[in-house]
Amino acid sequence: MNFTFATQKATLLLPRLECNGTISAHCNLCLPGFQDVHAMVFVGFGFLMVFLQRYGFSSVGFTFLLAAFALQWSTLVQGFLHSFHSGHIHVGVESMINADFCAGAVLISLGAVLGKTGPAQLLLMALLEVVLFGINEFVLLHLLGVRDAGGSMTIHTFGAYFGLVLSRVLYRPQLEKSKHRQGSVYHSDLFAMIGTIFLWIFWPSFNSALTALGAGQHRTALNTYYSLAASTLGTFALSALVGEDGRLDMVHIQNAALAGGVVVGTSSEMMLTPFGALAAGFLAGTVSTLGYKFFTPILESKFKVQDTCGVHNLHGMPGVLGALLGVLVAGLATHEAYGDGLESVFPLIAEGQRSATSQAMLQLFGLFVTLMFASVGGGLGGLLLKLPFLDSPPDSQCYEDQVHWQVPGEHEDEAQRPLRVEEADTQA
Amino acid sequence: MNFTFATQKATLLLPRLECNGTISAHCNLCLPGFQDVHAMVFVGFGFLMVFLQRYGFSSVGFTFLLAAFALQWSTLVQGFLHSFHSGHIHVGVESMINADFCAGAVLISLGAVLGKTGPAQLLLMALLEVVLFGINEFVLLHLLGVRDAGGSMTIHTFGAYFGLVLSRVLYRPQLEKSKHRQGSVYHSDLFAMIGTIFLWIFWPSFNSALTALGAGQHRTALNTYYSLAASTLGTFALSALVGEDGRLDMVHIQNAALAGGVVVGTSSEMMLTPFGALAAGFLAGTVSTLGYKFFTPILESKFKVQDTCGVHNLHGMPGVLGALLGVLVAGLATHEAYGDGLESVFPLIAEGQRSATSQAMLQLFGLFVTLMFASVGGGLGGLLLKLPFLDSPPDSQCYEDQVHWQVPGEHEDEAQRPLRVEEADTQA
Amino acid sequence: MNFTFATQKATLLLPRLECNGTISAHCNLCLPGFQDVHAMVFVGFGFLMVFLQRYGFSSVGFTFLLAAFALQWSTLVQGFLHSFHSGHIHVGVESMINADFCAGAVLISLGAVLGKTGPAQLLLMALLEVVLFGINEFVLLHLLGVRDAGGSMTIHTFGAYFGLVLSRVLYRPQLEKSKHRQGSVYHSDLFAMIGTIFLWIFWPSFNSALTALGAGQHRTALNTYYSLAASTLGTFALSALVGEDGRLDMVHIQNAALAGGVVVGTSSEMMLTPFGALAAGFLAGTVSTLGYKFFTPILESKFKVQDTCGVHNLHGMPGVLGALLGVLVAGLATHEAYGDGLESVFPLIAEGQRSATSQAMLQLFGLFVTLMFASVGGGLGGLLLKLPFLDSPPDSQCYEDQVHWQVPGEHEDEAQRPLRVEEADTQA
Repeated sequence: MNFTFATQKATLLLPRLECNGTISAHCNLCLPGFQDVHAMVFVGFGFLMVFLQRYGFSSVGFTFLLAAFALQWSTLVQGFLHSFHSGHIHVGVESMINADFCAGAVLISLGAVLGKTGPAQLLLMALLEVVLFGINEFVLLHLLGVRDAGGSMTIHTFGAYFGLVLSRVLYRPQLEKSKHRQGSVYHSDLFAMIGTIFLWIFWPSFNSALTALGAGQHRTALNTYYSLAASTLGTFALSALVGEDGRLDMVHIQNAALAGGVVVGTSSEMMLTPFGALAAGFLAGTVSTLGYKFFTPILESKFKVQDTCGVHNLHGMPGVLGALLGVLVAGLATHEAYGDGLESVFPLIAEGQRSATSQAMLQLFGLFVTLMFASVGGGLGGLLLKLPFLDSPPDSQCYEDQVHWQVPGEHEDEAQRPLRVEEADTQA
Repeated sequence: MNFTFATQKATLLLPRLECNGTISAHCNLCLPGFQDVHAMVFVGFGFLMVFLQRYGFSSVGFTFLLAAFALQWSTLVQGFLHSFHSGHIHVGVESMINADFCAGAVLISLGAVLGKTGPAQLLLMALLEVVLFGINEFVLLHLLGVRDAGGSMTIHTFGAYFGLVLSRVLYRPQLEKSKHRQGSVYHSDLFAMIGTIFLWIFWPSFNSALTALGAGQHRTALNTYYSLAASTLGTFALSALVGEDGRLDMVHIQNAALAGGVVVGTSSEMMLTPFGALAAGFLAGTVSTLGYKFFTPILESKFKVQDTCGVHNLHGMPGVLGALLGVLVAGLATHEAYGDGLESVFPLIAEGQRSATSQAMLQLFGLFVTLMFASVGGGLGGLLLKLPFLDSPPDSQCYEDQVHWQVPGEHEDEAQRPLRVEEADTQA
Repeated sequence: MNFTFATQKATLLLPRLECNGTISAHCNLCLPGFQDVHAMVFVGFGFLMVFLQRYGFSSVGFTFLLAAFALQWSTLVQGFLHSFHSGHIHVGVESMINADFCAGAVLISLGAVLGKTGPAQLLLMALLEVVLFGINEFVLLHLLGVRDAGGSMTIHTFGAYFGLVLSRVLYRPQLEKSKHRQGSVYHSDLFAMIGTIFLWIFWPSFNSALTALGAGQHRTALNTYYSLAASTLGTFALSALVGEDGRLDMVHIQNAALAGGVVVGTSSEMMLTPFGALAAGFLAGTVSTLGYKFFTPILESKFKVQDTCGVHNLHGMPGVLGALLGVLVAGLATHEAYGDGLESVFPLIAEGQRSATSQAMLQLFGLFVTLMFASVGGGLGGLLLKLPFLDSPPDSQCYEDQVHWQVPGEHEDEAQRPLRVEEADTQA
């Protein structure tokens, strides 16, 4: 199907889609795989962030808005970079999945600044981030020949550090004025678990959505499944270990249990082996839980990064770990281990153009490129978002839906008298 | 598989299912597609209507009851009309999808009368509506040769106007006695967003569930995806524009953002082009939001139609718009644009039996037939539902779960003393 | 893909996956089918048990923990029993589905003891149950040649009676001290409906996940779909009939409406016929509702079995009924009725090695074997779980999240002062 975008004048031709037998077999898998990815992005991310007690409308609403915007914009951006031929952008199931991936990265960045930014700021952030995401992905996958099927680098590392640097630039020293709204209440934590569980169950489809059909796809799904199961056990164990009186912390379960999906984003399509996946997942769950417990407070106090959802623990560290794991597993690639599958996982090694070691070095270089793009982009984004007309919520009104929404009361008898926004001290 | 229903005596033969290679390829797609449609009908509609503060049990429960009833009854009705051969009704994945579609139309009508009708009334409504749905669909698809893959006409327009006319007949001048329960509370709006998001993500599967495999199905999914993304942006923009202090209204986001799926129900399998889908979706989101803001009050005050969920804005107007868009796109069909795909989208044009213009005229005629069936059926239904033994809730007890359910308290300490239904003034 | 586990020393070879054309067709269906089963186990069971007013974190959290543990452990156990060849365990999509099935059985048992057991106890229970589940399944499917595609016996009957006997051994005469927390509150019932609906919609995929592709799979899905629709109607009818003032009970709708999926677990892949499926489902919904209303109180007062979620009504009785229905339908199997499909449903009958009658007798024997394994295993499990160092919650602290979790307040103003666990009287 052609999404025609003539360079001279923006004429739009009628779409056409070639789909022969082989592609058709491919198609059979893509649509269900796409729907699973779509569910992760919109249900998973949307509800995961609902944990804030007075920011549920914004969490699910702004996720919805940003993702819907990002997938349109990234269809254009990625289209120009990846599938622009003779004046046409080619779209199809693959472009839908790629656009959803890009929306995922934007939502990860949203997690870092959630509650402290208005919708106009967020749209501007997405406008910039989608472009940089596309360029970074293009450099890694097309110029460097890096493999990153589930996006440990392109999605998680990029999204997390973009958001964290942006949050650093927007640092609010007076944020404790809104501290009482920063926690959860009992039922908001249950809503957030909807997000967690949907992310968890569909992650095997996410990592395998764009891998080679058949053996490659199954291996990817299987490795992701084992890694997630192990990271869940690691998270429960560590959460009880570091909790007061051995009690579990819902924040850990909601987030760190998912780190197993992030950490195998690069390597799950490779010959990671089930044992490797289990070990990687357990490690990721552990590291992520420790990050929530010990590193997030330091990040705010020492590094002045206010990370609302702890994306550094769920996407940042596990993303970097996942990239390094990819370096390791790529460096061990041999013809014996992969057989015919080498062609689809590492085509350049299969064709003899590149050794496993140089593939590993390039994977490592890809991580540095990603961190660079994310940091510079996040810094630039932060400066842009400080523009005064973008309507940033005041320090005392962060994490508060009423700044952006008409909010009904919490209980039946209050429903007729909506809560009032207290007179906000002007900031900005 | 044969669902045998001998005309003379109701003997049921053992089911058998022929599935050769070609059909098997078809089957591969159908089951996942069916599950997505199933999720939309039961999760999507069920939770979308949970927004009412004291009617959550009824919203999700009656949706469940009506849909379960409708899909059994419509399997029979549609079976007699579409696949009744030598005394057998043939059932299979396609009949399951068709039955779910019919259940969707019944749930749209439920949205118009929600909170003002008891379960006996609703089952009677479904009993009638399923029959009329089947006949209308048969007239359109089989007698007129109209194309309506995603049901802009057969599902959305039919369901909405059937429900609206029915609601008109059941008009309650004293409904303000229950007005204080007609709004949402904070967490009921979050539950409703579960419905919204599940409808939103699976709509590409809904519109493409019964289209021709391969290129046709992908085009349908792609057009729906773009239309929904654009309608979401349109809804957010308009909601902020017409809201007080630029604040967003959750009712708009929950509903109008979905109008993009409705508006391309007819045309998404056609050569709508991505640009066409984006424009149609943006328009639908805009029109629907304006409908909620300005037209719903007029509908009640001037036309005496009490539309609980605003189905006129989400399904009525966008459905009619979608039918008209189908007229336009069908009228532009050429062999050049569709290539080999013309055979599956417009078989009669491909075979030279019909021109594109006459196809367009018949699409338009199909819309009128649908509006006719819906209006007459809704009127008839309304008269039937006034039968006094059907136990309609009194005016002061509308939108109240306790009329129909044993309801626990809202909070922990109340859980042992269930709220009491106030002495209801008898009506009916 | 080989999950290598050499018997001498635990070396792990690199995984490899053979996937030729035929298997590839199989693969296409498996991954979406797997994702549906995965959603049922984690979303469905997780949220179904959230109905308890103060045990939501534990319900969804312990479900998550147990299922993640069970699927890893059962991959090993089932692997050793079913696919251990030349020192390797073979894993793949089928092993993932089987592991999820086993996790389902563990979660059913969890339903019987929910709220009265700590996480260490539950993990020990799972450790034992997974092994017995694997052995029982091996005896039935491989030694006896019993058919049980959707697990009426291996999953539902086994899981339910294992849990019930275990709950009998752990009987708490002083449980009324926690009675005030045993009910639901309004919004916890809505959360539970998320679980119900997800179980309900994906049950056709669950029962058909491992059946023969094509006709067999479609027949299985279709029979399950009809059975569930009928059990929903039966449940609503009976709930209103036995409720005070004809009012519906949410507990029935949440649970008994699902009995239709359980009751056709064995027979849905067989020639049950649509009429048979409808009748079976209606019966199951009826029996299950009556069980909740009349039998659960007797089970506690007379048999000293405290069944938190009523798994006897949802999985126990309908599971046994389903096994008996399988006996009946298997006994009626003929070459005429199944045609070529006989080979995939009853290979031993097709090859002439076994008559339909002896297949039926073996199915019945399989039920007895299952009940035996479940009872002995549950009894043994109960004794193990009484070990004093396993930290069972005291009688006055059952159904209470704060024993296991750091719990935020219920409302905004309480969020900063978490509720305190009352000084617990020491038990154990």
